[in-house]
Amino acid sequence: MLPKQSHFPAATMSPPSMAAVYDKHGPVDTVIRLTEISPKEISEKDVCVKMLAAPINPADINIIEGVYPSRATLPAVGGGEGVGEIYFVGSAVKTLSPGDLVIRSPYIPGSWQTYMVEEESLWHKIHEDTPIEFAATVSVNPVSALRMLNEFVTLKPGDSIVQNGATSIVGQCVIQLARLYGIHSINIIRDNPGSDEVKEKLIKLGADKVFTESELNVQRIKTLLGDTPQPILGLNCVGGNSATLVVKFLKQGGTMVTYGGMSKEPVTISTSNFIFKDITLKGFWLQEWKLEKTKYRDWIDYLLGLVRDGKLKYEFDSVHFEEFHTALEKAMGRHGSQRKQILIF
Amino acid sequence: MLPKQSHFPAATMSPPSMAAVYDKHGPVDTVIRLTEISPKEISEKDVCVKMLAAPINPADINIIEGVYPSRATLPAVGGGEGVGEIYFVGSAVKTLSPGDLVIRSPYIPGSWQTYMVEEESLWHKIHEDTPIEFAATVSVNPVSALRMLNEFVTLKPGDSIVQNGATSIVGQCVIQLARLYGIHSINIIRDNPGSDEVKEKLIKLGADKVFTESELNVQRIKTLLGDTPQPILGLNCVGGNSATLVVKFLKQGGTMVTYGGMSKEPVTISTSNFIFKDITLKGFWLQEWKLEKTKYRDWIDYLLGLVRDGKLKYEFDSVHFEEFHTALEKAMGRHGSQRKQILIF
Repeated sequence: MLPKQSHFPAATMSPPSMAAVYDKHGPVDTVIRLTEISPKEISEKDVCVKMLAAPINPADINIIEGVYPSRATLPAVGGGEGVGEIYFVGSAVKTLSPGDLVIRSPYIPGSWQTYMVEEESLWHKIHEDTPIEFAATVSVNPVSALRMLNEFVTLKPGDSIVQNGATSIVGQCVIQLARLYGIHSINIIRDNPGSDEVKEKLIKLGADKVFTESELNVQRIKTLLGDTPQPILGLNCVGGNSATLVVKFLKQGGTMVTYGGMSKEPVTISTSNFIFKDITLKGFWLQEWKLEKTKYRDWIDYLLGLVRDGKLKYEFDSVHFEEFHTALEKAMGRHGSQRKQILIF
Repeated sequence: MLPKQSHFPAATMSPPSMAAVYDKHGPVDTVIRLTEISPKEISEKDVCVKMLAAPINPADINIIEGVYPSRATLPAVGGGEGVGEIYFVGSAVKTLSPGDLVIRSPYIPGSWQTYMVEEESLWHKIHEDTPIEFAATVSVNPVSALRMLNEFVTLKPGDSIVQNGATSIVGQCVIQLARLYGIHSINIIRDNPGSDEVKEKLIKLGADKVFTESELNVQRIKTLLGDTPQPILGLNCVGGNSATLVVKFLKQGGTMVTYGGMSKEPVTISTSNFIFKDITLKGFWLQEWKLEKTKYRDWIDYLLGLVRDGKLKYEFDSVHFEEFHTALEKAMGRHGSQRKQILIF
């Protein structure tokens, strides 16, 4: 980190920023390039942040491809989440000082660059002891896990939840948060080689049960559950058969929340699941939850507190920003299943 | 109707009842037969009702086939809904008298017979001027239409709803109730010959718009809607492509309620409809709504009031009970699409 200091040059321009820029929407690896962009004026209410780390999230890729509902004004800098250290503050800035560790909140586009200038209210100061990789990635996946466990059904200790995509960061956070709250988690993973190792890992994180999809296709679900109660909440980020398996686990009157569609297959549910099993299907999109800034920042602080206390963790790959294109290829799944790619500036 | 009289024989046995009986679950036309069943004892809290009319509902058929979640104790009499006239009351019965017109409420099995004996509380007295065919059919389809318009979203005048299966009795009731409440109804029908006639009929009932499935597959839905607002509630009794079309019409944040699966195809919904369009999918099963008997009876009285005022109507076929097997074949769709079959005793 930079030393806390107040003797910055009088100039109200940011340093030039190295950025991952795209001029048009399209296949992300053909439209995006690293380039230096000009210094920006820092007005009296602005804060200039030296970015430290930013992840490559699937939504970032979709936005650049132009397949996301909200489009950027072009040319644009990619990325959305990220953490940085305050480099310079405008004269009217009251709550932040150079050296503060801040994350972008609410989520606004343009985190894949070395310096950013945005007004004071868009930055949220976090505890200086927070590991930057967790700070960089807390506001999308872990917040989604937290909100999905809280907003759809009322869970109490002893209840169960079921999820697919359990190895994702959301999945890992769901397992750990559920365990913290005394809630059983039933986890569905794909039939990839090494699934026994994956099972062991997730059980170590706090999972109660982990099944591959093919184990569920051949066995009665109630037998597999044993003493674990049937779940009242299901989380689906896969779709297709995997979503159908989540619904199979659900108790009468249960709710399945869809927050992703990794298989690119739709959700298919029989009429009798609606009528006789009284299943509710809902969707979750973090965008919708970001409007209440104060609450959103509380959730972030809570989660980063858990990280600092060693109660929440997940795996990622740190990659230097110069290796952007390699990280992008990995994030796009070109090299098989990969951990979250975090750009370090 | 029988004259109101009190000089019934002292015997506390019902007359023998001609009934449609099944001894085992299976294909309905092979397991069911008309037969006379023995007189039943009428205890002091019982009411003996001479049945006047009872419909053949799809659920009645499914129950006999054994594919319904709840099974009857065998041997059993078929049917569930129905209207009758009180023939004899036990000595402790306070609220009902011979000659009263009553319907079975809550819904209990066994309406396909000429005399029934059940305790006082299971019968609901209705206005004596009610046409018996509407009385016989009010408690399943029209009540479903009424509840589905009230229980899932808050509709106000000027709002829209969309439904498939619009020619069914539920569909016809939805159209008329929506019109009564100042709500626009958008209706989806199948591509059968004579669809222009069907459209005309539904528009006369109060439908705002009627489209065949194929019209919707080729045209932009917003263009078809014109000035009609996008619906916030969708009702699905078909499944498959027809359910997908209902969701296409829905406004951001809308809810689709599934209450049937006539196509025998499941409901298939894209991930983006959940995440970006924030669609909720729920199920409706009237069974669940019957527990609060008082409310249920209020709904029935309200709907039969509309019938008597000429504000609610639908088409049906009246068939003498002796023609039971013909009516059953029609109800099972063996002779193409048919109106509701109502047995007259």
